[in-house]
Amino acid sequence: MQEMPIILFGVGGVGRALIRQIVANRQFHADEFGLVLHLLALCDRNGAAIELGHGLDDVNLIDLVELKEEGGQLSDHTLGGADHGELATIIDMAGRVGTVVVDCTATEGTVPALLFSRDRQYKIVLANKKPLTTDQEVFNRLTQAGATTENGDITPRNLGHCRWEATVGAGLPIIATLNRLITSGDHVERMAGTFSGTLGYVMTGLQMGERFSEIVGEAHRQGYTEPDPRDDLGGIDVARKALILARGLGWEMELDDVTVEGLYPEEMAHLTIPDFMAALPELDEFFADKVETAAVQGQVLRYAASIEKHSCVVGPVTVDANSPLGRLSGTDNLVEFHSKWYSPSPLVIQGRGAGVEATAAGVLADIIELAHTK
Amino acid sequence: MQEMPIILFGVGGVGRALIRQIVANRQFHADEFGLVLHLLALCDRNGAAIELGHGLDDVNLIDLVELKEEGGQLSDHTLGGADHGELATIIDMAGRVGTVVVDCTATEGTVPALLFSRDRQYKIVLANKKPLTTDQEVFNRLTQAGATTENGDITPRNLGHCRWEATVGAGLPIIATLNRLITSGDHVERMAGTFSGTLGYVMTGLQMGERFSEIVGEAHRQGYTEPDPRDDLGGIDVARKALILARGLGWEMELDDVTVEGLYPEEMAHLTIPDFMAALPELDEFFADKVETAAVQGQVLRYAASIEKHSCVVGPVTVDANSPLGRLSGTDNLVEFHSKWYSPSPLVIQGRGAGVEATAAGVLADIIELAHTK
Repeated sequence: MQEMPIILFGVGGVGRALIRQIVANRQFHADEFGLVLHLLALCDRNGAAIELGHGLDDVNLIDLVELKEEGGQLSDHTLGGADHGELATIIDMAGRVGTVVVDCTATEGTVPALLFSRDRQYKIVLANKKPLTTDQEVFNRLTQAGATTENGDITPRNLGHCRWEATVGAGLPIIATLNRLITSGDHVERMAGTFSGTLGYVMTGLQMGERFSEIVGEAHRQGYTEPDPRDDLGGIDVARKALILARGLGWEMELDDVTVEGLYPEEMAHLTIPDFMAALPELDEFFADKVETAAVQGQVLRYAASIEKHSCVVGPVTVDANSPLGRLSGTDNLVEFHSKWYSPSPLVIQGRGAGVEATAAGVLADIIELAHTK
Repeated sequence: MQEMPIILFGVGGVGRALIRQIVANRQFHADEFGLVLHLLALCDRNGAAIELGHGLDDVNLIDLVELKEEGGQLSDHTLGGADHGELATIIDMAGRVGTVVVDCTATEGTVPALLFSRDRQYKIVLANKKPLTTDQEVFNRLTQAGATTENGDITPRNLGHCRWEATVGAGLPIIATLNRLITSGDHVERMAGTFSGTLGYVMTGLQMGERFSEIVGEAHRQGYTEPDPRDDLGGIDVARKALILARGLGWEMELDDVTVEGLYPEEMAHLTIPDFMAALPELDEFFADKVETAAVQGQVLRYAASIEKHSCVVGPVTVDANSPLGRLSGTDNLVEFHSKWYSPSPLVIQGRGAGVEATAAGVLADIIELAHTK
């Protein structure tokens, strides 16, 4: 049996789904791959639960997941504590050769711990977009991780060390595909598509004649949006995904270089969340008109990203109702790769691009891939 | 720099495109991945060219490719010979730790050499469907390759050792996606789609009102079909791909278990190739009628495969002209994965599923992935 020690940052929806999937697949991973995944530590902003040696056992893991689901803290559990200090201290304590550090948080705060992990030659799996969308240098250091070869060369890409599939399109194999095209020397000239389940849901609702304020309100109540829905509606989440794809092509650029058009006017940017929600009906007519004007011409509204010629553009666009993008509905994502070998028809990947289970499955597939890498 | 020794079986269209791509990307692979791919031996049915040590240099590689393109034999080259004997002898002579054996032939004849390579713990990349569609046991041994763990356990899957992306859908990431879904514990309930660029071309031609005999004749002249077009028209090539996908799910089945409906009647099975081509016009009316009947109901004819509930069914089907499959045209392939996390909407991958360059690129991506595995 190959043992795979794991340290998990983030025990929110995706982190908890991942823990449940690891437990549910334990027998399968042992039987099929000869692999045992040991969760040595779970960490979030309020504390950590750590069990060195063979990691937290399944009874305690499920206890901890349920504790969090009921609104408790890791530190409320007998194995938990609030006094473990910095993530780096936990990594230092728990990590050992072959450790995979998994980041399912949504904060830039993990960057120092990830770089620390990288310097220890630990492998890294990210569902968290923030570390890859802060400074270009951090992207480079994380994705080039383990970069020094025997004779001291630094190589820009080390696919044996870092995976970040779940940062774009949840579990859809978008990053894996991009990396395959790149390694084979194909030239990706353009990527385009929709990368937000939430905005897909909003656009489908508009198309069905629902009011903008009602759709957003409902999505907010159902937890489909970020706590502040502007984090979705402003397009910054899509911009981060576009930036990750652009950087994946080897382009050096920053988040500020992405052109973003959001779905609410600047003057609503500084309201409190309740005030913002209350002001949403003011936008209903604007969107209803937009959708109607498009419909007359056989078109529909989509929130799309285009990555081409060293620029990323993100915002609402009208597309033919009968085009692949126009036919997309609900939380499905779609991405087109236009390249030397995929021209004039692009390579297209389509499917659910949101949801904690699909996202966690993308993280788990990354972890298992890294079990086979040097 | 990491050195990757490669032994290539098959210097036909895909093999030659692969050699050219390796040469063209040499600098890129060195700069970006710190990787050097050494082609130690090229082998085909008539001979081999072998250069131990650092492998064949680029001048000789391109010479050999051009020699083959002009109808010559490897043995005509100063580095070539017809007397190298069995593939196993060449592997024995040229192979060393970390060697990747790449099969771009279209024959079952490589199976003993592949199993020999596997027993030497060499890695294996297949574009050749035959070894994975002969006995289940051969599929298992090749894809479980390197199967023994430290304490002697045999694990059914060893994704660090064998890749076979280009056997289905050329360079499209179909096998990679299937393997990711499986490793993450998703349950794939159904796969469906079109896996033949050639039959896609035929179906698109029929839809545009061309005659069956003319389309097939033109495809044959252009080299889009196998030398005997019945190898495509009979559906056996699609059946092999369906079987590879089904076995990838862990289902144990043989090629005989696949239900196949071909595009020509049994009585044309035993004609010579010229007689078969001459008899094709007899089928024109049959297909014209079929297409017309479908068109009246807004449907089109497609050659599709369905892999579900431990059975594979391959044959012509009528689908809604406005469905994803119905909108597909030319040599594009499309595959849908219906699974626990991709339901009710499937995960869809679409794009060029044929052509030597796209196929070779799929092989090259596999090779580079294996550079990072244990």
